[in-house]
Amino acid sequence: MVTSHDVARLAGVSQPTVSRALRDSPKVSEETKERVRQAARTLGYVISETGRALASGRSRRVGLLVTDLENQFYPYAISAMHRQLESMDYQLILHTESSDGERIAERLFAHSLDGVLLATTTSDSSLPLRLKDRGVPFVYFNRTAASVEADSTTADAVNGLGELARAVLDQGHRRVAAIFGPRNTSTGEEREEALRAALELEGVTVPVALTRRGAFDVQTGYRGMGELLALRERPTVVVCSNDVVALGALNAAHELGVRVPEDVSVVGFDDLPPARWPMFSLTTVGFDLAAMARAAARLLIERVEGGETAGPFRHEVFPTSLVLRRTLGPVPTP
Amino acid sequence: MVTSHDVARLAGVSQPTVSRALRDSPKVSEETKERVRQAARTLGYVISETGRALASGRSRRVGLLVTDLENQFYPYAISAMHRQLESMDYQLILHTESSDGERIAERLFAHSLDGVLLATTTSDSSLPLRLKDRGVPFVYFNRTAASVEADSTTADAVNGLGELARAVLDQGHRRVAAIFGPRNTSTGEEREEALRAALELEGVTVPVALTRRGAFDVQTGYRGMGELLALRERPTVVVCSNDVVALGALNAAHELGVRVPEDVSVVGFDDLPPARWPMFSLTTVGFDLAAMARAAARLLIERVEGGETAGPFRHEVFPTSLVLRRTLGPVPTP
Repeated sequence: MVTSHDVARLAGVSQPTVSRALRDSPKVSEETKERVRQAARTLGYVISETGRALASGRSRRVGLLVTDLENQFYPYAISAMHRQLESMDYQLILHTESSDGERIAERLFAHSLDGVLLATTTSDSSLPLRLKDRGVPFVYFNRTAASVEADSTTADAVNGLGELARAVLDQGHRRVAAIFGPRNTSTGEEREEALRAALELEGVTVPVALTRRGAFDVQTGYRGMGELLALRERPTVVVCSNDVVALGALNAAHELGVRVPEDVSVVGFDDLPPARWPMFSLTTVGFDLAAMARAAARLLIERVEGGETAGPFRHEVFPTSLVLRRTLGPVPTP
Repeated sequence: MVTSHDVARLAGVSQPTVSRALRDSPKVSEETKERVRQAARTLGYVISETGRALASGRSRRVGLLVTDLENQFYPYAISAMHRQLESMDYQLILHTESSDGERIAERLFAHSLDGVLLATTTSDSSLPLRLKDRGVPFVYFNRTAASVEADSTTADAVNGLGELARAVLDQGHRRVAAIFGPRNTSTGEEREEALRAALELEGVTVPVALTRRGAFDVQTGYRGMGELLALRERPTVVVCSNDVVALGALNAAHELGVRVPEDVSVVGFDDLPPARWPMFSLTTVGFDLAAMARAAARLLIERVEGGETAGPFRHEVFPTSLVLRRTLGPVPTP
């Protein structure tokens, strides 16, 4: 393997000069830098990140913790995060495990990450506190947490579900069911509160009998919809905690021969690409997911590089808007 | 931050002894090891992977190169790879860029990866050769490559498409269309050849007029199906290069009001979870994707740890079987 000593020999400079030149240090003349780069190219030398990490105390690696990668939301976000991080010369280390906070924390520390993006944190997780204690910067993506403050990027649930609720009520719906997200996620809590508040303005509530709750996955929507459609008094509309849950609900309706939106309306949140597929054509709440993912990466790197001087925590809330498609229709006439 | 020097002081040993003890070196007595571990626990010291990498020459990080993460195939594979690597104490670094071989190679080398999993390699990529030249072990996942040999894990296309072709012919289909994968992927080529060979046994060919080709994505299926359904003489069945392409085809049919399978049959390959959703109920070719992903990770680590003595390349071919669902029906009577 080619080392910096080989490059130094060929360029006729000292080894520390090679390091400085390749780091583009202002202490080295442009002419010397060019000679060193030329020598490095000739020998096929690549700066070792491992060596650089020990020298700078920074690994230029950040972790992304996401426990449900199969949820289609995340692949769309990860590509955008990866591109943003790469443009800032950082690498993305993916952690998909769903073990307890302590074990993940040990792994994250052992890998000398400069920071961590938390994408699926539950509000009862001990991980944020452990990261804070160790001084590892982190950013919440599509989450906020009550216990430990940090930078965050989220979608504006209040506005999005406000618009959605008004559209639902405008179509005459009063028997509104909801399949909410888990109680121990900020995203689940926020969306539930936003929907209930918006409906309440018109005196409409989601009764316990029409409330279902579960993980942000297809199964939750499929099972919840099956139960709601088995009720003697069915809801006329089902508001789902996200698009993936709504796809599960649409499939349950299809399987039971219940027509959407003629017999029951279904709406989601996220506007993932499948929401646009003609077979789903899901009415949902949209926002710029890629921009939100890039912002999380940017906030993290600013926090990593700013150190103690990075200032107060920032919460970037991305604007949302209602996307009307086929699955929301007028309340069925009995 | 706690260092190994702090641990050494508390345990009353030298710093090199701390390193050796925590690496479980036989040169250190069990009693000393226990004292060092106790001190490390007390101080909350975690072995720095960066330091360990320099000491061992191994980073315990492997790269996964996947250019189309939005393709639902990969999220399902990545979780399984991640778990397998973690159980062997390796970390997964995700690379999703789709730039040219040279640029990716530089990035991979710069990050001192122990090995690379290549998931979306095209047969004209220079990356395998570059990795080989630098002595970086790699494994093809769901791919093989003609130019540079390496370990690989793939699904058995010959058997799977053989069974599929017989089922198609048994239903009376003779006007068979296909939406094939890209020519510059081994997966695309293998599946095309396997399908053509199996149909040929019964004297059936896929004419040029009924052949479409494109990336393994929803758009390819959507566009290809739209074109095939616009023909004056439509095919009675459309064989898709994978499930994601088939989902695109089903959506195009739906949008055009063409019934599946009453008017046209559609089949896929992979048996991804959405294939089982009632709205799709896709007839396809299944295999154990998680096992195939785990095997790729295992082969890579064996290659990394075996070094020169790791022996000849291994090609693990996973058995496939036909999964009959709703989208394959009898040839329509005119």
